[in-house]
Amino acid sequence: MEALIKQIESEIRDVPDFPKEGIIFKDITPLFKNPKLIKEMVAYLKMQYKDAPIDAIAGIESRGFLLGVPLALALNVPFILIRKKGKLPCKTIAHSYQLEYGEATIEVHEDAIEPGQNVLIHDDLIATGGSASAAAELIKKLKGNVYGFNFLIELSFLNGEENLRDYSKNITSFVTY
Amino acid sequence: MEALIKQIESEIRDVPDFPKEGIIFKDITPLFKNPKLIKEMVAYLKMQYKDAPIDAIAGIESRGFLLGVPLALALNVPFILIRKKGKLPCKTIAHSYQLEYGEATIEVHEDAIEPGQNVLIHDDLIATGGSASAAAELIKKLKGNVYGFNFLIELSFLNGEENLRDYSKNITSFVTY
Repeated sequence: MEALIKQIESEIRDVPDFPKEGIIFKDITPLFKNPKLIKEMVAYLKMQYKDAPIDAIAGIESRGFLLGVPLALALNVPFILIRKKGKLPCKTIAHSYQLEYGEATIEVHEDAIEPGQNVLIHDDLIATGGSASAAAELIKKLKGNVYGFNFLIELSFLNGEENLRDYSKNITSFVTY
Repeated sequence: MEALIKQIESEIRDVPDFPKEGIIFKDITPLFKNPKLIKEMVAYLKMQYKDAPIDAIAGIESRGFLLGVPLALALNVPFILIRKKGKLPCKTIAHSYQLEYGEATIEVHEDAIEPGQNVLIHDDLIATGGSASAAAELIKKLKGNVYGFNFLIELSFLNGEENLRDYSKNITSFVTY
């Protein structure tokens, strides 16, 4: 595990001043140029969740789709798309959350899960936890259970986990800054 | 293969009047609720491309990420993100293309591929071929070769393939309407 984490860290690229001055953006695109590494990450997650009662993975558009689908395939469970407003074609439910300036809305199809299903929410990165907690609200509105959260990267100095613990204590990330 | 195609067809959902009146939208989200089916699709593509000199898969945001990453993992090649303007943090090149009203711009990182690499472009759907040909232009600007194109769905009545044949004759889809 330690070697895996080190390799992930070494391939994440820091991009200063993106999307705006003062932010150091964590670029995960180099990871996906390394299929061996992604397979090892998926294998690790498969082991981590092997005894977990997970019925579906919900991935948050669009970087949450990248590792979310391989993880769902490895666990042999459905992959549920959580998308930005207006992108999903059938009947949806929506949840809005605050951004630094303004707000964002994400949606999920009403029939994405069955009531009572246990859902693991996946995204590439947790910052303040706004989108992940909005995703958890969507799962709850569909009468699902939030089994937990998984991220590639956690920006722990932003304390995003605090916004998620009411939904589930199962919160894991490969890399924490 | 025929049974696989039939199952894919049976799980694609027609959504009338989305995103606007008169359009019948092909909803692929039900496919991703069926991990067995997605694995069979990936296995089929792996067989289809087993002798092809493919060095990378380029997936077009965001639905092209869904099957694109598992395909790249199956072929053991890098997955390259083609994203909407302003989303990729490092140095990018861009290409704009016409939409019915206005235009769209997609980007790729300058270092996404090496010159001379053979790239398979993947997206969920080909309509007029605007975004796929823009993706091909990006690959060419990076001095890569467009090995071919793969889609889940082709809307053949829109003749999108005609806009792609100058880049490559290798154009395949699971389902054609």
